[in-house]
This record gives sequence, C-alpha cells and structure tokens, in this order.
Amino acid sequence: MYLVKVTVTYKESILDPKGEAINDALQRLGYHNVQSVELGKYFELQVAKSDRPIAEQVNEMCDRLLANVNMETYHYEITEMRTQA
Amino acid sequence: MYLVKVTVTYKESILDPKGEAINDALQRLGYHNVQSVELGKYFELQVAKSDRPIAEQVNEMCDRLLANVNMETYHYEITEMRTQA
Repeated sequence: MYLVKVTVTYKESILDPKGEAINDALQRLGYHNVQSVELGKYFELQVAKSDRPIAEQVNEMCDRLLANVNMETYHYEITEMRTQA
Repeated sequence: MYLVKVTVTYKESILDPKGEAINDALQRLGYHNVQSVELGKYFELQVAKSDRPIAEQVNEMCDRLLANVNMETYHYEITEMRTQA
C-alpha cells in the first residue's frame, strides 16, 4: 500500500486572487512579514500495489483528473506503507 | 526568508464527500487500486524573518485563519530559503 500526497497549485502566469485575499487577511491580523500566499489543492490517496509502477499511475491520475494542466502544476510524494498484520 | 508549506485536511470524524467523489471518478477511469481519497487545502507562504520564531507564527496563523480547527487539522513544513544576492 502506498500513501500518495499530491499538491496542485496555479502556474506562475495565472492570477491567484484567493491567495492574495488570504495574504491581505494575514496582513490585517498583523503578520506583516508574510510576503506572498499561494492557495492550492491537496489530495491524500491510499493506493494498493498493482502491476503498474505507482509513479506512472500517479502522473496519469494528475494529468487526467486531479490537475488542470493548462493552468496548474502538481507535485507528489509517494510513501510505501507497512500494512498491519 | 522562509518557505512554508501548509496542508489542511478534515479531521477523521468529518465526512469528506468531495474526496469520495474524486475516488469514484478515479474508479470509473479504471484506477481500481485506489482505496481512498482525502481532499484538503494547500497553502504556500513566503515569510520574511521577524523577531518571533517562525514555527510559533505559523501555528498561530493556522489556528486563527488558515484552518477551521473544529473540523480540520493542519501540518506544515518550514524551509529556510537563501535570498538572491
């Protein structure tokens, strides 16, 4: 079993008004040393082993469903989990 | 300067219908080895050094704004960045 953590964020050229709104709110709360905020999505998947390499499968899932590759980029981290006996 | 990556997900006791919808969609696309999907939020902050310890500040920002601590839990990762000369 694998634990897969995927983060999806906008590409640099795409405006992120929600991230800016959060930055504004943090400034109002007094966190003046915050320089920028980017908002993205986070997915945590549990995936059983299969015939296919896990990274290949995760790439494909990101391209086909989890990210809009026209506007977004993704990163992922795959950890193998020990299953309980 | 610090790069702060925050992930916010629902507590275990809270239903996550969007995560389930994504899991259903992945199943329909043929990824039958996906066992569960949890959907969360992701924040990437650039924070300048200040008098206060960065971890203390990030904790406070999560508690006050980034997460709804009644329903959500958060994790963060802080990396110190080299500033360009």
